[in-house]
Amino acid sequence: MRSSQNSPADVRMKGFASRQTVEQAWAWLDEQAAPLASESVPLAAAAGRVLSEPIASPIDVPRFARAMMDGYAVRAIDTSGASPYNRLPLNIIGGVLPGETFDRTVQAGEACRVMTGAPLPAGADAVLPFERTECEAERLWALAELSPGKHVGPRGEDIVAGTTLLESGRRLRPQDIGALASIGVAEVAVVRRPRVRLVITGNELLPAGSQPTGPKIVDANGPMLSALVRRDGGEPIYPHIVRDDPSEILEAMQDEADVILVSGGSSVGQEDYAPMLLAEHGELAIHGVAMRPSSPTGMGRLGKRLVFLLPGNPVSCLCAYDFFAGRAIRALGGRPLTWPYRVARLPLARKLVSTVGRVDYARVRIVGGRVEPLAISGASILSSTTRADGFVIVPADSEGLPPAAEVEVYLYDE
Amino acid sequence: MRSSQNSPADVRMKGFASRQTVEQAWAWLDEQAAPLASESVPLAAAAGRVLSEPIASPIDVPRFARAMMDGYAVRAIDTSGASPYNRLPLNIIGGVLPGETFDRTVQAGEACRVMTGAPLPAGADAVLPFERTECEAERLWALAELSPGKHVGPRGEDIVAGTTLLESGRRLRPQDIGALASIGVAEVAVVRRPRVRLVITGNELLPAGSQPTGPKIVDANGPMLSALVRRDGGEPIYPHIVRDDPSEILEAMQDEADVILVSGGSSVGQEDYAPMLLAEHGELAIHGVAMRPSSPTGMGRLGKRLVFLLPGNPVSCLCAYDFFAGRAIRALGGRPLTWPYRVARLPLARKLVSTVGRVDYARVRIVGGRVEPLAISGASILSSTTRADGFVIVPADSEGLPPAAEVEVYLYDE
Repeated sequence: MRSSQNSPADVRMKGFASRQTVEQAWAWLDEQAAPLASESVPLAAAAGRVLSEPIASPIDVPRFARAMMDGYAVRAIDTSGASPYNRLPLNIIGGVLPGETFDRTVQAGEACRVMTGAPLPAGADAVLPFERTECEAERLWALAELSPGKHVGPRGEDIVAGTTLLESGRRLRPQDIGALASIGVAEVAVVRRPRVRLVITGNELLPAGSQPTGPKIVDANGPMLSALVRRDGGEPIYPHIVRDDPSEILEAMQDEADVILVSGGSSVGQEDYAPMLLAEHGELAIHGVAMRPSSPTGMGRLGKRLVFLLPGNPVSCLCAYDFFAGRAIRALGGRPLTWPYRVARLPLARKLVSTVGRVDYARVRIVGGRVEPLAISGASILSSTTRADGFVIVPADSEGLPPAAEVEVYLYDE
Repeated sequence: MRSSQNSPADVRMKGFASRQTVEQAWAWLDEQAAPLASESVPLAAAAGRVLSEPIASPIDVPRFARAMMDGYAVRAIDTSGASPYNRLPLNIIGGVLPGETFDRTVQAGEACRVMTGAPLPAGADAVLPFERTECEAERLWALAELSPGKHVGPRGEDIVAGTTLLESGRRLRPQDIGALASIGVAEVAVVRRPRVRLVITGNELLPAGSQPTGPKIVDANGPMLSALVRRDGGEPIYPHIVRDDPSEILEAMQDEADVILVSGGSSVGQEDYAPMLLAEHGELAIHGVAMRPSSPTGMGRLGKRLVFLLPGNPVSCLCAYDFFAGRAIRALGGRPLTWPYRVARLPLARKLVSTVGRVDYARVRIVGGRVEPLAISGASILSSTTRADGFVIVPADSEGLPPAAEVEVYLYDE
């Protein structure tokens, strides 16, 4: 059911006795959410995952000295004094392409044709580029003098065996996957993705994809939270909508998961079962946060599960997810705690009203490079978050912000 | 095979006759890459996809006036003059929860208990919150006066039927998915994801996941490009490594795809087959770009396929992908052309050397808030991109940048 922002007078709990601050809730949360254990995944599935241990290279890359230009592998000493006016003769003894091995040793006065990337033949110590040569039948002329090592990429030039290529905690980038392939890695140990079970409650809800009929409305929070969880690296588990029934809610909360997100019934009304259930069967560590929207948010533990009680109003649900649940899911998955939103610093187009004593999550639009507040209240108006370009956080100690004040906008468009 | 950065003197093509500028290459590219046709996907799979048509709501949301607080639905006129000192009596006729319909009409002097989100019963026009009442048995007393509409969310308050909820081109956010669910959408028309075929060439290559042996090296570009293509919203197709054989390369280039990425053999050497094949069987529009690394980059068309010839050196391959192929893949998928990297403006720790006449892609580290250039050359050193925090672009008209100059760093860590 939808959480009431106010409590009925005729039930035993009369509103929140006191609200915790956002910082208090974060302090509790950040103690709970250490990265999960490691699992092994194939390299091809590892992009974006977080390493659970450092990776040192077992090999040099390249494993052999290689030609860095197309030309001839020679002994540098054989080119001593060569110039266009003092051509020195060399004898071509064969050629080698990348991926091949030359089975002879380059001797004094000999040259072996090489293409870029080919292993340097034994005996050679430099590469004479094609454009520094002249060729007549099998007779080659060197037109330039080389120092040893010239145009040769030494063994281990890219990566030296034994050095740490990537540290634990690294979120793997596309080029990391390439580098890991090049050192022969087939599987990597990464932080397991948090399994996040959605417990979307409400007798009034129809499953997403339905047409709303009669007094029923369609579940918006389930599909929204599924997408948010995936964005933050979790695996959403969402079998079905749960009825407003304490035993059904408890059963769903006790099901297998690392994180439980309960949507709806998070406040202190008579049909707000989840807080009582969590307090009775686990720990309700935080209930009521000094913020707007989302003040009827709770969190705690049920066995090993981290549980978040999110308001049913969709804007409150989004805000409570972003402030608390998303942070925990990222932390469990080894990702940064910070919001995955880009930030723009821009001036306010007009005053942003707020109230001392609570944090405000203000949806804003950016119009002509200036920030237009859309709404602070209206927790039921989900379209306020689709019309918005992002949000501004007004701290608890602020009465609001004057026009032209520069603010940080967290942009919804990732 | 690995592209040569220089041409052998003994083949007919002697280096690039002239290089195009990055801007010229972009100008050609941006004319080629209009968003692909539309496909229909289930809402649950639509997060992050790009709408191919606007979506207007077929319904009002909510479809009925609803209670915005827990309390009693009443006729506002019946509370006229009510206060704690002038309690007015009301007769409770029943109750309604969210998802339910009340089957009677609220008449003069009557009250129907409602929970937040419940449809407002017929006849009522306001909600008297619990805390503004006193209750004795079935007799209710109003303690406050209400104006019509008080604590009622009107029909269509969130979304009015017929209004455009989301515009064409919108990349769907988690809250958009929620809002679409609430208007009864089950499937959405989105831009098809570009199918991107990887044609990774090189006789020296072993598949990713192998141990390198003898003169063979492991393919780094295939897994790196697969991850980059996924990041940019494309579907990589990568069946196998292709041998340095013109007919095998041509066959792979002609296979089903929207975009072909050829890695290796992109330059003007005698074994660089792909440019000749593209010129012969399609259009080689750009070949050779004034940039470092990645100057031996090509692009063109083969039938309906957009073809990119990427250097085999992995740093060049990454850079050419990011400058050209990624831009096209994003454009085909309806995404912004801009890089998907966050940008930081920071001062240079030391001089960044460059050369007039080419764009430089300089890998950098951020150390103590200052930007340390790592390497401009070293196109074969993939670990330079894993050690780097990001890159700085030095424009073609710049000789380099002095210490303390503020630069824009594109951060690899998305």
